[in-house]
Amino acid sequence: MENPPSLDELIRALRCLPGVGPKSAQRMAFHLLQRDHDGARRLADGLNLALGRIRHCGKCNTFTEAEMCVVCASVRRDPTLLCVVETPADLAVMEQTQSYAGHYFVLMGRLSPLDGIGPREIHLDRLLQRASDGVVKEVILATNFTVEGEATAHYVSELLGDKGVKVTRIARGLPVGGELEHVDSGTLAQALLERRPA
Amino acid sequence: MENPPSLDELIRALRCLPGVGPKSAQRMAFHLLQRDHDGARRLADGLNLALGRIRHCGKCNTFTEAEMCVVCASVRRDPTLLCVVETPADLAVMEQTQSYAGHYFVLMGRLSPLDGIGPREIHLDRLLQRASDGVVKEVILATNFTVEGEATAHYVSELLGDKGVKVTRIARGLPVGGELEHVDSGTLAQALLERRPA
Repeated sequence: MENPPSLDELIRALRCLPGVGPKSAQRMAFHLLQRDHDGARRLADGLNLALGRIRHCGKCNTFTEAEMCVVCASVRRDPTLLCVVETPADLAVMEQTQSYAGHYFVLMGRLSPLDGIGPREIHLDRLLQRASDGVVKEVILATNFTVEGEATAHYVSELLGDKGVKVTRIARGLPVGGELEHVDSGTLAQALLERRPA
Repeated sequence: MENPPSLDELIRALRCLPGVGPKSAQRMAFHLLQRDHDGARRLADGLNLALGRIRHCGKCNTFTEAEMCVVCASVRRDPTLLCVVETPADLAVMEQTQSYAGHYFVLMGRLSPLDGIGPREIHLDRLLQRASDGVVKEVILATNFTVEGEATAHYVSELLGDKGVKVTRIARGLPVGGELEHVDSGTLAQALLERRPA
């Protein structure tokens, strides 16, 4: 027996979520239709609302509903420090450490030539421009300590090498292969504290 | 820094999905907004479409877009057999065996007094009515072999005890290809108990 078409379509659509395979997608669809119509409606509305409202901050790239994100718009942040992270999730965990009061640049990815993600895709032209604006004194590289994150950090530090800004890398207090998103704030705070010249 | 409100709302909404905690929800939201706007749009549409179209089959309870589901509407199925399953997912795996040509009754749950799920919630009044319609000759109980599934099977078999229909339970035993060494002793004990002529 086949599922009704609209149910099959929902199951297929749920598979666009990362980490959701055919079995989970089916379980999710059944759950929503059987027990949580309100949740399903709220999710549909939430998706449409976010799609309509969320855009990238004109200055740092992170998600925002305004022209500029809260951090970039703040006058309390130190404009001489620029921290480079891969994703908004990484920016969020950096903020959770409460150990950093500078600005951010969110790459929205990492260098990954095999996936067709080169310097242009992670907006390095804009990063270069930002770092050379005369205000920024130090660029802190806080990409992940994965192979691609390290390669990205290396590439960026080469790129900024002769631009007259100090380029540092957060300390390898993180486990090798570890990702910012999954580390505790204390370790991350320490890594930030022990940043070293790149 | 806080996420923009519509992003936070989307993350909250994603948590209505079973098995999705705060971290996964955030990862899903970022993924959709960063890399898969089409997928997000399709998911929102899929949810709304399914919510609008999917209802329960008037006869067997499973999900359908019509008044009656494909199985119940088919004239090729044996109307004297009625298989009782917990969910549409269970119905689907039963169909995948291609070993059953009767009808179904989908409980849409299992007895679970602690969760407030009693006989009424799993539509046992309708099952009783269906089993007593004079057409059904055998009711096959195919609820799960969990504590709750077993209790449900037991309850249903008591309920139908004097209604003049044969009530059977799918066999418990070793899986096909299963090895004695790797099966739990409860299953093995049951397989021994339910041994049949070779």
